[in-house]
Amino acid sequence: MNIGIVGLGLMGGSFAKAVKRYGIASKVYGFTNSGKNKKEIEELGLVDELVDLQTLKKVCDIIILSIPVDAIISMFPDFLDIESDKTIIDMGSTKEYIVKNIPAKIRKNFIAAHPMTGTEKSGPRASIDNLYEGKTVVLCDLEDNENKHVNRAFKIFQEIGMRIVVMDSKEHDINACYISHLPHLISFSLANTVMSYQNPKEIIALAAGGFKDMSRIAKSSPRMWGDIFKQNRENMLESIKSFEEQMSRAKKMIEDERYDELEDWMRKANTLHEIL
Amino acid sequence: MNIGIVGLGLMGGSFAKAVKRYGIASKVYGFTNSGKNKKEIEELGLVDELVDLQTLKKVCDIIILSIPVDAIISMFPDFLDIESDKTIIDMGSTKEYIVKNIPAKIRKNFIAAHPMTGTEKSGPRASIDNLYEGKTVVLCDLEDNENKHVNRAFKIFQEIGMRIVVMDSKEHDINACYISHLPHLISFSLANTVMSYQNPKEIIALAAGGFKDMSRIAKSSPRMWGDIFKQNRENMLESIKSFEEQMSRAKKMIEDERYDELEDWMRKANTLHEIL
Repeated sequence: MNIGIVGLGLMGGSFAKAVKRYGIASKVYGFTNSGKNKKEIEELGLVDELVDLQTLKKVCDIIILSIPVDAIISMFPDFLDIESDKTIIDMGSTKEYIVKNIPAKIRKNFIAAHPMTGTEKSGPRASIDNLYEGKTVVLCDLEDNENKHVNRAFKIFQEIGMRIVVMDSKEHDINACYISHLPHLISFSLANTVMSYQNPKEIIALAAGGFKDMSRIAKSSPRMWGDIFKQNRENMLESIKSFEEQMSRAKKMIEDERYDELEDWMRKANTLHEIL
Repeated sequence: MNIGIVGLGLMGGSFAKAVKRYGIASKVYGFTNSGKNKKEIEELGLVDELVDLQTLKKVCDIIILSIPVDAIISMFPDFLDIESDKTIIDMGSTKEYIVKNIPAKIRKNFIAAHPMTGTEKSGPRASIDNLYEGKTVVLCDLEDNENKHVNRAFKIFQEIGMRIVVMDSKEHDINACYISHLPHLISFSLANTVMSYQNPKEIIALAAGGFKDMSRIAKSSPRMWGDIFKQNRENMLESIKSFEEQMSRAKKMIEDERYDELEDWMRKANTLHEIL
């Protein structure tokens, strides 16, 4: 079985490493349209061979799309002529908009997946061993797929050590919003709050673990996250509203010096860790 | 030289460990008024001897106050009768309010310090080796201290491996607000946003590194943080306002679908990591 990976940045590059490590593919092919990435992918030896898209479609049994979510949508036309026994798996962070727009012709062999893993880094050099091992992958709206392709997807994610969760794409987008997309926007906002301050360097000199953790994902790729915020727009607006309500409630309690209530509110926040 | 530590939770307990590890004190004494903590401190062997406050004041040359910031204020009267050659060092996260309230009688021998380190855990069992090593400690308003006590403070923090920064207490509180206090409030707010959602467990099941990092400090002690938000109230309100402006700006760009601008805004956030 040959595996083809479109986009070999953090997600795709790490997927190539995992697939090779577990000896899942006879051969791993890659495709990228970035000249800079091409060079890095070759230097790192991420795939057995970088090919053009037509070749990749012909020689691979499973094709992984690990590119920004808008780029996934843009590539749909490129897959209209693909044979129906080839499995296409997208790994985008949003699912509802993608699933809605999969052309009917490839719906049965197009699997919508979201591996809940990553780092703040991007590009081929960001790829790491074990990015997927022990992590969760969400597969969405599988009722519209042919069993053969579903099984293939299950198998490949299992083989690289992932825990599989199936979910409706609508539900996925809400959950992913609260657990990942909203926290990213918050981290970007915190970073910009500090950077807008008169002397950020002086503040940063005192940064300890808390701030480093809270600002780590503010390093993430604007291109990739712009697309995600766009495709998950409605949930984002809803979740920002909920978050703003909490911030404003806390602010009001500090303003009014209602510190006992503020402590109760923090104790409620503490309970998160009973389930996490 | 004998060292006495008042409060042996995460900060005090870890300080005891550091002091013992580097053989800085002839003997390490401890004081706590919590019966539960007393038992844990003894089980863990954090200090050579737990004593009452009068004894601690008599036998120790340096006394460390590692208790919540409001408790520091409440303890001032207990130190009014201390000999002037004893050094008292508080390790609270706020400094301006504390410094303002140090009684004149002990101002020369009372050093206001803030070690920029910690974890989300609390209590004696939270104490760890190396909490202080390689970290920064801020010493404030030293012009009001006697040199002998300043030198003692410098020496002890240096000996446990800390980097010393001196700063005006007002400036410290602003910087600590942006780098630590505001991020804590944000983390509490994020945790409460998720916990207020209809089915938090379902969301949490998908949590990956980003969310774990962003919500880690939401596990912190409400008692301790209530006091900090209270003592740094004005800076908190100011910094929340700046942060809310960033969030609201991001929300507006998503609302208006101005994604190119949103990407520019994220690119600005990325620049934080050029200085961190």
